[in-house]
This record gives sequence, structure tokens and C-alpha cells, in this order.
Amino acid sequence: MHISEKAQRCELSPMRKFHPYAVEAVRQGRKIYHLNIGQPDIPTPAAFFDAVRGFADPVLAYAASPGEPALVEAVRDYYAKLNIPLDASDILITTGGSEALLMLMLSILDPGDEVIVPEPFYPNYNTFIRAAGGVIRPLHTAPEDGYRYADRARFEALINERTRALLITSPGNPTGVVLHPQEMAMLKDVATDHGLYLISDEVYREFIYDGERLHTMLEFADAAENTVIVDSISKRFSACGARVGALISRNRELMQQCLKFCQGRLSVATMDQVGAAALYGVESGYFAATRDEYRRRRDTVVRKLREIPGVICEEPKGAFYLMAALPVDDADAFQRWLLTDFSDRGETVMFAPGEGFYATPGKGRSEIRIAYILCQKDLERAIDLLALGIEAYNRRDGV
Amino acid sequence: MHISEKAQRCELSPMRKFHPYAVEAVRQGRKIYHLNIGQPDIPTPAAFFDAVRGFADPVLAYAASPGEPALVEAVRDYYAKLNIPLDASDILITTGGSEALLMLMLSILDPGDEVIVPEPFYPNYNTFIRAAGGVIRPLHTAPEDGYRYADRARFEALINERTRALLITSPGNPTGVVLHPQEMAMLKDVATDHGLYLISDEVYREFIYDGERLHTMLEFADAAENTVIVDSISKRFSACGARVGALISRNRELMQQCLKFCQGRLSVATMDQVGAAALYGVESGYFAATRDEYRRRRDTVVRKLREIPGVICEEPKGAFYLMAALPVDDADAFQRWLLTDFSDRGETVMFAPGEGFYATPGKGRSEIRIAYILCQKDLERAIDLLALGIEAYNRRDGV
Repeated sequence: MHISEKAQRCELSPMRKFHPYAVEAVRQGRKIYHLNIGQPDIPTPAAFFDAVRGFADPVLAYAASPGEPALVEAVRDYYAKLNIPLDASDILITTGGSEALLMLMLSILDPGDEVIVPEPFYPNYNTFIRAAGGVIRPLHTAPEDGYRYADRARFEALINERTRALLITSPGNPTGVVLHPQEMAMLKDVATDHGLYLISDEVYREFIYDGERLHTMLEFADAAENTVIVDSISKRFSACGARVGALISRNRELMQQCLKFCQGRLSVATMDQVGAAALYGVESGYFAATRDEYRRRRDTVVRKLREIPGVICEEPKGAFYLMAALPVDDADAFQRWLLTDFSDRGETVMFAPGEGFYATPGKGRSEIRIAYILCQKDLERAIDLLALGIEAYNRRDGV
Repeated sequence: MHISEKAQRCELSPMRKFHPYAVEAVRQGRKIYHLNIGQPDIPTPAAFFDAVRGFADPVLAYAASPGEPALVEAVRDYYAKLNIPLDASDILITTGGSEALLMLMLSILDPGDEVIVPEPFYPNYNTFIRAAGGVIRPLHTAPEDGYRYADRARFEALINERTRALLITSPGNPTGVVLHPQEMAMLKDVATDHGLYLISDEVYREFIYDGERLHTMLEFADAAENTVIVDSISKRFSACGARVGALISRNRELMQQCLKFCQGRLSVATMDQVGAAALYGVESGYFAATRDEYRRRRDTVVRKLREIPGVICEEPKGAFYLMAALPVDDADAFQRWLLTDFSDRGETVMFAPGEGFYATPGKGRSEIRIAYILCQKDLERAIDLLALGIEAYNRRDGV
């Protein structure tokens, strides 16, 4: 039976291959500290559940294809507070940031078209770009440089006649890199000078730890045709299971094309949109408290990682991830070994091996992504287990 | 800025172009009877809302990518009652039947690949197939034949080296046609003889009105590699706004490919899956009552349509739609006129003009789709308005 080339070029999640080993480790009675997933432990604000419980229509009907008007208004209000005026038609509510990315790639990429993405990057970008027949052209960055990528010459060296877009994530997953305002302006210039889309995945916008004000690529009024924002409530309000995101652009033609796909799939979940609209009303104290909690966690992880001999790790400025280079030859083999052969007082640890975050073959092999989504105490123990694991792994028999 | 060819080949919803006229008619104080949309008025069973209100986790977390285990089990139980044993891995929970169709087309179609679809068909099939770079090869049917399509020779005449799948909808939207068991077997034979996927959209399975038992293409064990079912709770439980569907197949390779797209978009809405699992527990009396209600509506619509001179309308056997040919030259122009120039005691009516349901240019121009989703009294009035409208339209000035 025929399978499409684009499906064959997609991959199963690189994180999942360790699942059987994790299941077996748990079966043997071991406890696993999970630093491998981006599912926050912060409670979802009660406003979501209250709104959903208050839903009183007898028929759970389709929502409007571009999004429930109340939610579209809530998103407009949110951006108005960032001094970004938007029309309702600049916003399409999507089933998570994921659907925004897929619709966007389907709308702008023909087979063989390229998107420049700094690596390491969020692995699912591969799926959305390949589903549309496109290809990622990676801009390589390294742990020694803190994974910073905003170098105009390096971007321009990758542009060719098949290039359609630059795709950046700021604050970054998996690196925690946050663009400075002048870096944002430079990337905007590259996009406008070369007639490219500038796709800015800003789902971690609130998660910045050095007191800066919140930024968005929508600030550049002279790049209205180029700029596309991928947004989501998943991390902003710790509501990952509510599959509510948004595609935002002032490019009218692009939004009309994306609207076709919105109409094709009819609507986003009605209940989730009711809950999401209510979430946009939570007071700003929620964000301050969440930010403080993640800042403490970041500081803990960085401090403890730096105590491990041979680990390379710059302080991440945002999101709740960091990449680190370990003094091991192969983080993939190391992770498997941690699950099959290692334990300290009956406990072990999981992270995401780095290779899946790179498009360049062979890159990231000694790196890992850590999601600091555990409470302080568990986080400390998890990094201690990592340190003990590295030591034991590097002096194991036969090495 | 670049727009992909596949996006350009998609279209905005053909139903939406009348929206401005409808808004204006309402503004002028006219009441519109809506026969144009497939949003049932049947209340969603309380089980959905009860389950959602009972959700007690503090964090609304991602669900499992293939679907929440409790919902997968509920779907398995449902099929077990139809004597169809399924493994959990035969089922992928999707964001509505829509996402099942999109993932499937992305998995099986390369650019230029063809899917044979009897026309008239659900217009969004266009979007999903074109998004994947594919093309619909229509098998034309006509109102005089009751839109029946199960003719082996006609299917085989359309098969070529680019054909990848047959896509049928039974019970049918927009026609209400229900395949007989021997027709199902014939289509299965065509698919297996020619190595094609047999995609069976069965989201209206429960809506059959002549006492037959429920059928599914999964009955054919010898076509396990070919058969793919598109399923949904939207119509089954009048829960359209809950965006919960399923892709079901025993073809392991295909399901692995589709799982890549499931993992890429992370998960389906958690709350909706909790509600959906509860819906599968509603007692069978719910279906019997719903079926009786729709049967009465169907009988009313058919009886009243046949009283209108020049209307051609076969009795639909399932779903809650019918197609009818009207004695007007252009149903599109007629619909616009009904909104701009017609009223009877301050009221008018909307349907879906037929052309958008056809792939063959020029076909369906005098046809309309009626969704019988109004209560008896409103349905009678709506068809009376249609009759009055036809009469007035055909004797208007200058015609």
C-alpha cells in the first residue's frame, strides 16, 4: 500500500524510543525523575475550569472557524496591553500552536521549499515542514556559544531561491535563548530585504527571567507582510491539554489562505475556547509568581550542572529548558544505560538526548535538553542523579 | 510573498459567500430558516458535561498522542458491540473526523495522486486532499438515479496509476445514500483487487431509518490492509463542538505513519476526550430516540418537497441531509435572491447550493442540499418558504 514521501520523511518522536526502557525500570521498582518533557507542573488557573463548568448551552455546537469571538477579543486585548493593535481578522484561533504551524507551512511551502531554522530546534518543526513537502535548512549553533544564532551573515549565507521563511523560537525551546531587541530588528531586516516570511514562535513569551519587558516580532510595523506569530495558551497558562493556540499576522493574503484550512477543519474545541477566553482574565500576579518559580528552578539547575566536571552550560534567559553538553560520547546510549543499568537508592533520571533537536547529521550527540519542570527538591535530586550517572557511566567496565 | 500551490488550489467554504446577505436580511428584520448547516439541534447527552465538570486534576496536561486510554477503550467497546474486534493500536484519536482525514491524506498522497470520490461529496474533502497535494477524481452521480454510485465498472474506469484510494461516505453527506451490504462488498473487492485504500467515512453510522443493522467497512477481514475508517463523536452524540474523532485501521504500516503526525501535534484536547469517553456510555435508547426524530423529519421534508412542482428528490436512507434538484436555472443565484428580494410574512430560507458539492465543473447548478436539523414545525415552514420562493423566483420581472 502506498505511503507518501512526505510521511516517510517524518519521524516518530525521538523521546519515545526510551519509553519501553522507562516502563521496565518502573516495573523493577525504580523511581524516575523526568526532566525529559515540557509539561509544566504549575496548576492551571481556576478560571479555566470555572468557565468550562459554567457552560450552559444544551448543544455543544461547532465554534466559528476563525475562532470564538470572545476568545479572539481576549487575544486582541492581550496584545493591546503589549502596545500591539490587532484587527480581529489578524488572528486565527488554532488547535494549539501545533495546528498554527501546520496550517502555515501548508500555506507557504511547495515541495522542496526551504525554511531556515537555527538548530537545535523544537523537533516537531520537522513534522510540520515535511508534511507540507518542505525542508529545514539548519543554522548551526553550539553550546560553547550559548546557542546564540542572530548573525546576519550566517542567515544570509543560507538563503537561496527556494528559501521561503526564517523560523525562530524566542524564548527558545530547547535552548532558553531570548533574542535581544537589536537581534529581533536584524532578523526582521533579513526577512524584509529578502522577501521572506519571519515566523516567530513566541509561545514562551512570558517566561523571561532578567526583568526585561515582553517582546514580540509584531512590534515591527514595517514588516507586517513578513511577520507571522505562532502563539498558544499551553505554557502561558499551564493549559497544555487545552489545545488552543493562534496564528497571528497582518498579511491579509496569507490569512485568507490559512482561513481555508480553518474552514476545512470546521472549528477549534468549543469548551477549550470558553476556558481560554477566561484565562486571559487572570491577573498579572499569576505571571509574576510563575516567573519567580521558574527563575529559581533555572538558577538551581544551572548552579548544580556547573558543579559537574566537564559539563558545558550557559545560563538560559527564558522558557523552561536548557541544553547542556555532557562529558559522555553519546547521550542516547547514556540515557538508555541510565534506565537499564543505573540507580542510586532506587532512583534514576530521564532527559531528552540532543541529537533529535538537530537537523545536521551527527550534531548534538553529547548534548541533552533538560526541562526544569520539577519542584526545587526534585530538581536538585535529579541533577545529583545525572552527576552520579555521568561518573558511573564513564568508569563502567570496558570503557 | 509566496503562497503554496496547494493552498491556492483550496477554496473558502462555498457556504460562506451568502453570510453577508444573511446578516443584511436579519438586520432588515427578516427571520431566516437555516437548512444550510449540519449542526444538529439535538441536546448533547448530559454525560459529556457531567464528566467535564467532574475533571479534578489541578493541571490540564497533554493527553497521550494516540488518544486517552479510557477513550480508546470506549471506542474499542463500541466496535466490539458491532462484532468488530480491534486492538488499541488500530485506533488513533483525532481532533474531529477532520484531522483524521487530513492526517490520512498526508500519509498516503504524493503530489498529483488521485482519490476517487463519488460526487456530490462533502466539500471539505477537497481541502484535505488538496492540502496533501492530491486530486479528487469524481465519480459523477445524478438526482434522477438517487445519487447511487456503487457501480463496479464506473469505479474501475476511473482507476489509473496515480489512484491511491476510494473515498466514500455512508450514510452519505450530502445525499443521504446508504450502501447496501453487497455494494460494500463490491467496493471492498475493487479496493483489494487494485491495491487501493478504501476510506470509509462513517460518521453518520447511527443515522439510518429503515431498520437495518449498523454496518462498517471493518466487517471485511480480508481487506484489513486496505480499509481505513473515519469516525467522529460529532454527529453520533450531537457533540460537534467537542472535536473528537478517530482514524481506525488494521494496516499497521499506515497507522505508524499517521502516528508521526499525532505525535507532531502532541495530543487531542484532554477535556473533550474525558467527555467523549463518558458519551460512549449513553444507553441505546438515546440513539433510538434520535433516529426516530430524524426519521420523522426526513419524512416531512421528502413529503413536502415532492409537493413542489418540478422538484426531483429521492428518499434519503440515512444521515440528515438530502440533495434535491429544483426547477431553477441556478441555485446559487436563487439563494442570493431569497436573501435579498424575497420574504413571506417577514421570513425566508437558506440551503446549501449544490455546485460546491461537485468536482465536475458546471454540475449541481440547479441542486441544493438540505440539512433537516430543525424541529418539525420549523421544517414545514422552511419547505413552504422554499416552495413560495421557487414560484416567485420563476415569475419575477424580466424572466
